Amino acid sequence: MAISTLSPPDLAVVKSTILCGPMSEDTLHSVLAGSTLNLYERNDCLFEAQEPASKLYLVLDGWVKLSREESDGSNTLIAAFTKGDSIAEAAAVLGEPYPATAQAMSNVRALVIEGTRFLENMQSSKEVLGAGLAAIYRQLHSLVDEVELLKSRTIRQRLIVFLLKTSEATSGPSSLRLPYDKSLIAAKIGTSPENLSRTFAELREFGVTVKGREAMIADIEDLRALLRR
Amino acid sequence: MAISTLSPPDLAVVKSTILCGPMSEDTLHSVLAGSTLNLYERNDCLFEAQEPASKLYLVLDGWVKLSREESDGSNTLIAAFTKGDSIAEAAAVLGEPYPATAQAMSNVRALVIEGTRFLENMQSSKEVLGAGLAAIYRQLHSLVDEVELLKSRTIRQRLIVFLLKTSEATSGPSSLRLPYDKSLIAAKIGTSPENLSRTFAELREFGVTVKGREAMIADIEDLRALLRR
Repeated sequence: MAISTLSPPDLAVVKSTILCGPMSEDTLHSVLAGSTLNLYERNDCLFEAQEPASKLYLVLDGWVKLSREESDGSNTLIAAFTKGDSIAEAAAVLGEPYPATAQAMSNVRALVIEGTRFLENMQSSKEVLGAGLAAIYRQLHSLVDEVELLKSRTIRQRLIVFLLKTSEATSGPSSLRLPYDKSLIAAKIGTSPENLSRTFAELREFGVTVKGREAMIADIEDLRALLRR
Repeated sequence: MAISTLSPPDLAVVKSTILCGPMSEDTLHSVLAGSTLNLYERNDCLFEAQEPASKLYLVLDGWVKLSREESDGSNTLIAAFTKGDSIAEAAAVLGEPYPATAQAMSNVRALVIEGTRFLENMQSSKEVLGAGLAAIYRQLHSLVDEVELLKSRTIRQRLIVFLLKTSEATSGPSSLRLPYDKSLIAAKIGTSPENLSRTFAELREFGVTVKGREAMIADIEDLRALLRR
């Protein structure tokens, strides 16, 4: 798709991404030629694990989960992506199997870019090579963060980290909307829905109240201090 | 360093890696020009977290751990690397901060390659670009595996996965040498040394015996079957 056919808000998202943000208008035009704007409904698959990767995805709106199906039928959530995130860059340019399944957790709009075309652009342009590597480096970095969080933090601490990341406030009180439902938040932090409810209840005495998807934090700094205990 | 100065066994390791294996002799020569062969003793640092990355590492012998220091002084093990593994490719070519600290867990020999030179080679050669992306993709994939393992498996199951990976046998009995000491194995699977000892003791009734660093598995398939329970 041509840049000119993207709506101004979508174009603004594209230009805010690690993958496309640093590119000049000409380069962006070349990278996006042949891409499509896809719409997904909740539960639609963007791609499935093991399928050879041919496309990379730039999320313009909504939430996408990356998860793995176990042989016993259970499902493990690996990561969640939203507006401005890119997905599967490395797999798509290499044509390797997708390492997990990507599924829409809400209505999703995503720009879908051909991996082979992106690779050609990486080969011919230092700008695209740098941007592609930077996006992949960010994925690596956030997976390293995730492994650290899972190994070194309790469930309560992981929930606090999740709330602090979701809130945009850095101090004082904050009201926020949970980005997806509680069963997914439980999966994200690696616990059961029952244990998540218990942990939310424990956090009440530290000023965290939740009603449906709305959460209220009495004092961000108090909550952050809990991480150090 | 020139390829010709590498010992034949070291050259064989280099040629077995995802990073350098697919390269022609000429390309390899160009990639390795300017690299050095470094020796580290146990506990020496290869690089520290947050330092701007300038070099990538190809392990020729020994074990390297990648870990993060917490603000409370505790240490979280992220990954362990050995012969044939490459480390920090994406950070080094971008000059981004290393996401964690790399430290020798034994005597280590590693080929140290300049990130800027590797990036130049990625820019000028499709072969190097493909090899670099493939090595980075493998890191991503193994971090996704790690997140899945931590979220979906019990400590006992994680220990079994570790033993099955360490053993090279696919069936029957297997005797193996644990690659590093038990406190690091505990850190690798995300538990305490005490809990690791308890879990090793529980596995005795399933045919796993451990004496120092030597382990014996009575039947690999029986052990694998335990993962499905």
